[in-house]
Amino acid sequence: MTETVEGLSINLATVRQQWGFAEAVEGCLRHGIHAIAPWRDQIAAIGLDQAARIVREEGLQVTGLCRGGFFPASDAAGRRAAIDDNRRAVEEAAALRADCLVLVVGGLPAGSRDIAGARAMVVEGIAAVLPDAVAAGVPLAIEPLHPMYAADRACVNTLSQALDICDALDPPQTGALGVALDVYHCWWDPELEAQALRAGPKRLMAHHICDWLVPTRDMLTDRGMMGDGVIDLPAIRRMVEAGGFSGPQEVEIFSAEHWWKKPGDEVLATCVERFRTVC
Amino acid sequence: MTETVEGLSINLATVRQQWGFAEAVEGCLRHGIHAIAPWRDQIAAIGLDQAARIVREEGLQVTGLCRGGFFPASDAAGRRAAIDDNRRAVEEAAALRADCLVLVVGGLPAGSRDIAGARAMVVEGIAAVLPDAVAAGVPLAIEPLHPMYAADRACVNTLSQALDICDALDPPQTGALGVALDVYHCWWDPELEAQALRAGPKRLMAHHICDWLVPTRDMLTDRGMMGDGVIDLPAIRRMVEAGGFSGPQEVEIFSAEHWWKKPGDEVLATCVERFRTVC
Repeated sequence: MTETVEGLSINLATVRQQWGFAEAVEGCLRHGIHAIAPWRDQIAAIGLDQAARIVREEGLQVTGLCRGGFFPASDAAGRRAAIDDNRRAVEEAAALRADCLVLVVGGLPAGSRDIAGARAMVVEGIAAVLPDAVAAGVPLAIEPLHPMYAADRACVNTLSQALDICDALDPPQTGALGVALDVYHCWWDPELEAQALRAGPKRLMAHHICDWLVPTRDMLTDRGMMGDGVIDLPAIRRMVEAGGFSGPQEVEIFSAEHWWKKPGDEVLATCVERFRTVC
Repeated sequence: MTETVEGLSINLATVRQQWGFAEAVEGCLRHGIHAIAPWRDQIAAIGLDQAARIVREEGLQVTGLCRGGFFPASDAAGRRAAIDDNRRAVEEAAALRADCLVLVVGGLPAGSRDIAGARAMVVEGIAAVLPDAVAAGVPLAIEPLHPMYAADRACVNTLSQALDICDALDPPQTGALGVALDVYHCWWDPELEAQALRAGPKRLMAHHICDWLVPTRDMLTDRGMMGDGVIDLPAIRRMVEAGGFSGPQEVEIFSAEHWWKKPGDEVLATCVERFRTVC
């Protein structure tokens, strides 16, 4: 029987080209990994009930469901539809007993140049979903995305900004609203250490890892395996731990030209080896 | 005779594939543009004396010389060589009577993951060059680059960070050290307005414009013409003006697949038209 790898979670996007949900879970278990973070399309493909059954029967920790968010829209109907979709995502996260629902908040509505307006829509959207999330027992984790995605994916781009939203919507720090810290998005931020401390244990809900490659050949799908890039992963892990997070590090690698083309078992074996040696 | 376009400068990188320095100046004058910002390789190709003579005879404003910087290096010899090169850049900027020497500070030394260390090398390097710049009467303008360049081009990535360096090295705000604000690098920054006010007239030394395209197909050479992307240029101009900068807006567009393939006169005519209508 394979030894359990404590403290490691696999975001299933890392093997999305190789495997569906059930195969990915089997792969993780073969490598001793008992924590996962699936995407909603992967859950939809197998069906929520079946996915939840697998999670329960295998005793998996679900370190996050990816993803809610994408709140800004050109009109009120679009914004309402986004909020409704986030409510469904909360239900799915509850069924999977996920530690949090990760929010990639969305960028500018089509044709807009109003980033301040988009940011206001994000706050409104999270405020609308938060009561449902509290009722379902699903913490919401705002994931600040790298500023290169500000236009089209997420107009929340620093931990500081995400924590300002938490302060506005959940001042008593109940644990209902927090942040997902992904090294890929935040490694460059000179305020990272201070903001991880500011976040504290109630708001640090996820710690995603991968690496920043030099050169980066594609803005979306050229993330590196831990150790292959320039991020000081142990330094950031210490910041996250100092902030009070003690959950698994979750590997999330989008890699169209490299890791998505490798056999899933090779990817997972490499994740385990790098987790043990460079994280 | 062509009417002068007040308040517009052309960074000659915008037409670097079409023209050398002398041809680019002739092109600018044909379009009524009397302010330019050349790159050092363009100056070297024609010779500093000849370039300075053209600037003088045509009465051009040089809104900046690009570029000094690239301070971090793996060893002390490399860092000394960078400082020496910056001293030569100061001399060139003085000969061209440039409003400032733009500093692209450099990223991580080869093989390094120590971004805090690289940032310390940047501060040391600027501190070493500053007395020479003061003696030559050349203001140094730190240009924060977009965080997607943190690893390989500039580990100073926000206006806030650049101004912290100014505070450390020139606390009395003598006008010897300041910042170049490029909308491409800073448009996403939620602190932009506050930091432009913080900078003030003594430290706002340049205002670069272009646009952020969606999608962006290349991280280095896919900048957009003003109006073709998502940046609210008038909003940022108002922030820069509120901060006290009253110099020209300087168009700097790296565009391998589009504008660098157009005739230089078409590029300049478009810059003038967009400057008048969307900036």
